[in-house]
Amino acid sequence: MLGPMDDDRTLLDAHPLPASVNGRLGEQLRFLVEIDRLKTVLRQSVLAADRRRENDAEHSWHLALMVLVLAEHADEPIDAGRAVELVLIHDLVEIHAGDVPYYDTAARAAKEQRERDAAQRLFALLPADQAARMHERWEEYEAQATPEARFAHAVDRLQPLLLNWVAADGRWNLPDVSDDLVRRLNGVIGSASQALGSAASAIIDEGARRNGGGSTRASRSRSPRPR
Amino acid sequence: MLGPMDDDRTLLDAHPLPASVNGRLGEQLRFLVEIDRLKTVLRQSVLAADRRRENDAEHSWHLALMVLVLAEHADEPIDAGRAVELVLIHDLVEIHAGDVPYYDTAARAAKEQRERDAAQRLFALLPADQAARMHERWEEYEAQATPEARFAHAVDRLQPLLLNWVAADGRWNLPDVSDDLVRRLNGVIGSASQALGSAASAIIDEGARRNGGGSTRASRSRSPRPR
Repeated sequence: MLGPMDDDRTLLDAHPLPASVNGRLGEQLRFLVEIDRLKTVLRQSVLAADRRRENDAEHSWHLALMVLVLAEHADEPIDAGRAVELVLIHDLVEIHAGDVPYYDTAARAAKEQRERDAAQRLFALLPADQAARMHERWEEYEAQATPEARFAHAVDRLQPLLLNWVAADGRWNLPDVSDDLVRRLNGVIGSASQALGSAASAIIDEGARRNGGGSTRASRSRSPRPR
Repeated sequence: MLGPMDDDRTLLDAHPLPASVNGRLGEQLRFLVEIDRLKTVLRQSVLAADRRRENDAEHSWHLALMVLVLAEHADEPIDAGRAVELVLIHDLVEIHAGDVPYYDTAARAAKEQRERDAAQRLFALLPADQAARMHERWEEYEAQATPEARFAHAVDRLQPLLLNWVAADGRWNLPDVSDDLVRRLNGVIGSASQALGSAASAIIDEGARRNGGGSTRASRSRSPRPR
């Protein structure tokens, strides 16, 4: 597998399209083939439907469907089409920057510049006007300054909870999750949608309870119970 | 792996969410977890970025990006957001009906009723208003009666050509592709976009030429050349 790479050759550099496919369309297709790499970037989450890790491309598809179905739960009205666009592109930079688990706080602090460089490099494959638009959308997601960006982020946080619920058999399988992290997680979801925030809290609390305690606020028993 | 299944249990039936997550949101989440199965439906195409087969979910994500980037090449003006929605959901029925290769004409004729049943069953997990909307969008794609549906279909046909171009090293790796099939394929793409149709023709013809002939219109030499 090729995955993230350090040189500047794109997939189509190694296999140039016929010479008649050039100009603006040629640039667009170069970008569109290059982003095939997102399918090789693995996340921490395990699928609900299979025992393998999820990749960024199928994750992004799942988020888009979540936005379409759950948009009515946004506390501020959102343009669902724009939120769909945000989730479809928000992980593209990981083609070069890699995935950083939400729980790895140190790594997340370091990744910002790397992602900025990755965006610069990847979007530059597109014609300038489209590169600018793609960059703008990505910055919108990162800045979290619009209702669409906040809702997109909320479903990005909710989706792994759902997969984990099924994959871990209704338990919460990250024993080192702290109160603080749970509060932050619920904060992200709940700040965009009270309904989704309540669902996320119920899932986390029930998972922790079944796990025999752990570290969330809902924990009543501290006695560890083997899984 | 679970994949397509014949009983009616959903993934969440085996792992019910906490009782407080119910009503409309509960139905929506049941559907959204169930569609995780699309990640386990494998297509014939091999990735450009890795030596494994593509699944329907990551394929659908790729098509959505293609619509966003290539919409300007549609010969009739399209609402890109709606075309994105069509490609995101057009393969969902394959969770129950399975993927049928474009080249398997007999199997394609038989699959229509199976897909109709699959749509009925899957979309029924959603609240009635959303089930109706999802069904409507899926029917729109199937009927190919709108510019958005035709453009969505065009990128669905173009994408595997691009993956194949890289995976097969600039050759056309389906030796039994007939003139007729190539004409149909180009017809689908070209009827939505002359620019994309020309690019597809160039890719197919050049791939066939490098393959030492074969059966497309552009073949000049009939002498087989080993790969």
